[in-house]
Amino acid sequence: MRYELYYWPTIQGRGEFVRLALEEAGADYVDVVRHKGKAGVAAMMKIIDDARSARPPFAPPFLKAGKLIVAQTANILFYLGPRLNLSPRDEAGSLWAHQLQLTVTDLVVEVHDTHHPISGALYYEQQKPEAKRRTKEFWRLRVPKFLGYFERVLQKNGGQYLIGRRLTYVDLSVFQNIEGLRYAFPNHMKRFEKKIPGLVALRDRVAQRPRIKAYLASDRRIPFNQWGVYRYYKELDS
Amino acid sequence: MRYELYYWPTIQGRGEFVRLALEEAGADYVDVVRHKGKAGVAAMMKIIDDARSARPPFAPPFLKAGKLIVAQTANILFYLGPRLNLSPRDEAGSLWAHQLQLTVTDLVVEVHDTHHPISGALYYEQQKPEAKRRTKEFWRLRVPKFLGYFERVLQKNGGQYLIGRRLTYVDLSVFQNIEGLRYAFPNHMKRFEKKIPGLVALRDRVAQRPRIKAYLASDRRIPFNQWGVYRYYKELDS
Repeated sequence: MRYELYYWPTIQGRGEFVRLALEEAGADYVDVVRHKGKAGVAAMMKIIDDARSARPPFAPPFLKAGKLIVAQTANILFYLGPRLNLSPRDEAGSLWAHQLQLTVTDLVVEVHDTHHPISGALYYEQQKPEAKRRTKEFWRLRVPKFLGYFERVLQKNGGQYLIGRRLTYVDLSVFQNIEGLRYAFPNHMKRFEKKIPGLVALRDRVAQRPRIKAYLASDRRIPFNQWGVYRYYKELDS
Repeated sequence: MRYELYYWPTIQGRGEFVRLALEEAGADYVDVVRHKGKAGVAAMMKIIDDARSARPPFAPPFLKAGKLIVAQTANILFYLGPRLNLSPRDEAGSLWAHQLQLTVTDLVVEVHDTHHPISGALYYEQQKPEAKRRTKEFWRLRVPKFLGYFERVLQKNGGQYLIGRRLTYVDLSVFQNIEGLRYAFPNHMKRFEKKIPGLVALRDRVAQRPRIKAYLASDRRIPFNQWGVYRYYKELDS
């Protein structure tokens, strides 16, 4: 099965959580929009806007697996998990992995809203004072709550992985969040990381996994930039 | 199996999507925190904070089914769907139902953030100008996008249900969103509803289902109020 991933070609964004899982598994996949160049976005929008489609995705990312189209990042990972050997196979375990992934999803929304608290359709420059206020609250209460929770889950599970005794897609997603928060808020993270030693060590272990390491060094990994979920604005990081 | 639902006892909030599914199915369940009175919230927080628990919920709502604890609203519905006969049984169908439910989840976050765009830990009165701006954008772009999408999915499926030929938990969740938006934004909704005739008719059909009708008339249905996700502020509805 060759998987087709559809996502914006110039950002990591939400698609990156799927890319990391496909890469770690050494899956056969095409990052369609990047692969197709200029025609890529049109191809993606055609699937979303297809008037004949009974099950159109609401937004990217989505995955095509044969005739099946699966959208919503956490849903894609739930589908891929057992196929890529990146999630528990029993029902309770797969629900638990998904539950954690949905908590990652909640965090990602809040990261995005630090720089766009009013609207994703307005420029950052049009919502700068609001972004400053929201970011302050984000670091005061939300990061400690979210990352504190993941740290607790990790420690309770023995410190190596978040779930069971093997890597899951949730470990990869937490890795991605640490990377993203480091890019967007280097000062904040420097201070905060001592509170989450387990997650930082997990991040390091993930980065050293052979396939992830090769992926991160390749041009398949889009660098963090100012259009994605994680953005660096100096005034939000002081 | 007697299900135990844990959620805040004074609001509909995210728990209501689960309550509606349990009620429609005539399931054997206890709304634990409401049932226990004052000790209820303590019982709920004890499960969340339980240092011995290997799989603690991040936040309410969560469902206890025997020894299993499932959290995250959409995850709970994914678990309950086949058990309550409220979702397709095939993999593609159940992923599609879940995908739509996750889009409902996204909408619910955005509804909440109309009145709390800066922080859920601050009072509305501390973020009123920001709330006004966010609400304006919400009605300009986000409601048309979300509800327009659900209307399209509904029409494409024949107009009766969002998925297949029977009611699913997604229909119940869309019903709840229409009810909530009517409570929070009566003026906005009055104007907007002509763009979503299918969803409005679906809302009416759901409201007339015998078990839902009985539930809505009972004291098990908590009235909308100013502490939940959907809140009415006159200045946000003009």
